[in-house]
Amino acid sequence: MSGTSLDGIDVAIVDITGKRVKPIITRTFPYAKAAREAILSVSNCMTHTATIARLHFLLGELYAEAIREACKRVIKLESIGLIGMHGQTIFHEGTPIEYLGHKVASTLQIGDPAIVAERTGIRTISNFRERDIAAGGKGAPLVPYVDCLLFQHARKPRVSLNIGGIANITVLPPKNSRKNAFAFDTGPGNMIVDALVRKFTDGKQTCDLNGDIARRAKLHNQLLEGMLSDPYFDLAPPKTTGREQFGQDFANGLVATGLPLEDLIATATELTARSIALAITKHASPDSEVIAAGGGVHNSHLMARLSSLLPAARITATTEFGIDPDAKEAIAFAVLAHEFIRRRPANLPAATGARRSVLLGRETPR
Amino acid sequence: MSGTSLDGIDVAIVDITGKRVKPIITRTFPYAKAAREAILSVSNCMTHTATIARLHFLLGELYAEAIREACKRVIKLESIGLIGMHGQTIFHEGTPIEYLGHKVASTLQIGDPAIVAERTGIRTISNFRERDIAAGGKGAPLVPYVDCLLFQHARKPRVSLNIGGIANITVLPPKNSRKNAFAFDTGPGNMIVDALVRKFTDGKQTCDLNGDIARRAKLHNQLLEGMLSDPYFDLAPPKTTGREQFGQDFANGLVATGLPLEDLIATATELTARSIALAITKHASPDSEVIAAGGGVHNSHLMARLSSLLPAARITATTEFGIDPDAKEAIAFAVLAHEFIRRRPANLPAATGARRSVLLGRETPR
Repeated sequence: MSGTSLDGIDVAIVDITGKRVKPIITRTFPYAKAAREAILSVSNCMTHTATIARLHFLLGELYAEAIREACKRVIKLESIGLIGMHGQTIFHEGTPIEYLGHKVASTLQIGDPAIVAERTGIRTISNFRERDIAAGGKGAPLVPYVDCLLFQHARKPRVSLNIGGIANITVLPPKNSRKNAFAFDTGPGNMIVDALVRKFTDGKQTCDLNGDIARRAKLHNQLLEGMLSDPYFDLAPPKTTGREQFGQDFANGLVATGLPLEDLIATATELTARSIALAITKHASPDSEVIAAGGGVHNSHLMARLSSLLPAARITATTEFGIDPDAKEAIAFAVLAHEFIRRRPANLPAATGARRSVLLGRETPR
Repeated sequence: MSGTSLDGIDVAIVDITGKRVKPIITRTFPYAKAAREAILSVSNCMTHTATIARLHFLLGELYAEAIREACKRVIKLESIGLIGMHGQTIFHEGTPIEYLGHKVASTLQIGDPAIVAERTGIRTISNFRERDIAAGGKGAPLVPYVDCLLFQHARKPRVSLNIGGIANITVLPPKNSRKNAFAFDTGPGNMIVDALVRKFTDGKQTCDLNGDIARRAKLHNQLLEGMLSDPYFDLAPPKTTGREQFGQDFANGLVATGLPLEDLIATATELTARSIALAITKHASPDSEVIAAGGGVHNSHLMARLSSLLPAARITATTEFGIDPDAKEAIAFAVLAHEFIRRRPANLPAATGARRSVLLGRETPR
C-alpha cells in the first residue's frame, strides 16, 4: 500500500486462514525525496506522459524491493502465496463527469504489477478500484469491506476510523441488527495539516508529531466555521474526496489568509477532528466503539479532541485487535487480494455507491 | 486492438480450437475526431493526469461498445469466452534509461479492462507488453510469436511483414532448419506519410489512398539518403521504434525543408519501402515469401516498390491465409489472450530481447 499522504510503501505480511487474519510483520519503507517529488509531479497536474510511464515501472521496482526487504529474516519469499498491490493513486474522480459524450468516473493507480510479479515470482493482484467504478461506484473506499470482516461485532455498534491523508469511517452496526454497514470519507485527515507543517518547518518536518504544534497554537473559529460550511460535509454518504479537494491547493488557500502558520495548523487539525466527530454523530450510534487507524492515531492532540467531541464513544486503536494502525490499509489489501482469488466480490455498495458487488482486482500470474 | 496510427478500434472475433485459428469476422470502428484528438493530446507529450485517467475509462467504454456492436447479428455476446485487449499505447520506451537511480524501460497502454469486462460480462486479458519489459525485453514486437504459430512453414523461408504506423517484420526460417524466428521494427510504416497527407489535404485525407499522391510526385534522393542514414536502420535486431521517433515530429521536420508536400509524401513512402527492403535483404532469405498485413498493403504504389526492391521474393498478403490484413494485429491479440489463459509464455525473446519467455497479460475476471 502506498497512500495519498506519500509517506512511503507499507508492506504487511499477513497469514490468512479461513476468516482468521493474522499480521506477521508490517513495515514502512519511506519514499526517497526524489521519488516523492516525482509522484507529486504527476499527481493530478500537468505532466509529461513519459514521466507517468517511467514512474509506473520505477514504482514497480520500489514495491518489489520493499516486499523482498520486508521478507528478509522473517519469511522465505517463496512461501508468500499472493501479493495485493494497491499502487499509487495519481488521479481519482469518483463522481462521473461529462467527457466526450460519455459519463465518465475515473481512477488511475501506477506501479507496474508485472515488475512486482517478475521480481518476486509471486502472483500479484492489482487495480482494485477500477471494477467498482465500472459498476457505477466511486471506486472508494474499499477498506470498509475488510472492516466488516475484521471488526463487526455481534451486539456492539462500532465505527472503524482511518485517519490517513483523507479521513474515512466505516459504520459497523451490530451483526445481529438489521442495519448494514456503510462507509464514507469524512473529509480531510492529515493532508492539509502535513502540508502546513512542511511549510512551517521549511520541509524539516512532514507532520505535526504528537500534535505538539497544534496543541499550543491558537484556533481561529471564524476560519474553522467557514471551512466547516464546505458543502462536502453535508453531502449524504456514500461520498469520497481526495487530494484534489483537501490537499496542497487547500493548504495554499489557508496560507494566503496571512494568519500565523502554527494557528493554521491548529485550526486545520480541529477541522479534521470536527468533521470526523460530525460524521460519527450524524451517522453512527453515539456510544459506538471507535477503532482508529492511520497516521492520525499518533497525533495525541487530535485523538484527545476526538474523545472530547464524542463523549459517549469509546475511542481506541486497531492495536487492540492485533493490527498495527499504521499498516491497516496494507493489511486490508492483502485481505482484498485473498478475496479476489477466492472469487468473492469485495466492494461494499453501501460504501462506494456501486450498483452491485463485483470482483475487485486484476491478476498478474507469478 | 487500437494501434499507434489511431485509425480506430479493430475488433476480430476469432474461433480458436487447438492450433487452428479461424477469424469469424473483423471490423474497424473508426475513432470519432474528438477521441482521436484526445488520444493524441496524451500521447508522449505534456498533458494533465486527469485527461489520461478520463480517457482510460472512456476508451474502456468505446472498446466495449465496439465489441458489442461487432457481435450483433454474428454471434451471441455470451458465447465469447475471452477478450484480448491491447489498449491504446500512449508511451513506449523499450530501451531502459537512467531514472531516479534505476534503469527503467516503460510502456503505457490505456483503456480500462474492468470497464470492458463489466460491460460485456467477458473475461478480459490486457497489459500484454509490461511483463516482457519486466523480463528485460523491449515490450515489442509481440505479434511475431503469433506469426510463428500462423505462418511458419516446414520447408519454405517466410517473412511476415506488418505495415502499420510503424513497419515490422518477423523472419520465419523453415521449421525444419536450425534457425529460430526473430523480429524487429524496420522503421516507419505509414505514420510519417499519413501525417504529411493530413497536412497536404488540410485533414481531408488521413492516408495516401492507393499511393496515388506518392506515385505521381517526385522523389528527393538526397533527402531520402539522408533519412536512410539514420542510425536506427543500422542497429542490430531486436530493436523497436515508435511515434516518438518516426511520428509527427519527424513529419514536421520534413515539412520544414520547404519541399513540395507531395514530393515529401513520395519520398517518405520510398523511405518506408527502402527501409523494409533493406531489413529483409539483410536479415532474411532473398527468396522468402513475404506475407504482408497492415494498412500499408492497400498502398499499391508502396507494394509495387517493395516487389521491385525485392526481386527474388514473392510478395503476398495475409488474405491468402484467410486473414484480413487490416485485422491481423487484432487477431494476434485474441491468440495472445488465448495463450495467456493456457498459461503459455508468449513473448519471443529473439523479437523483444527479453531474458526469458514469460506469460504476457493480466486478467480481469468476467
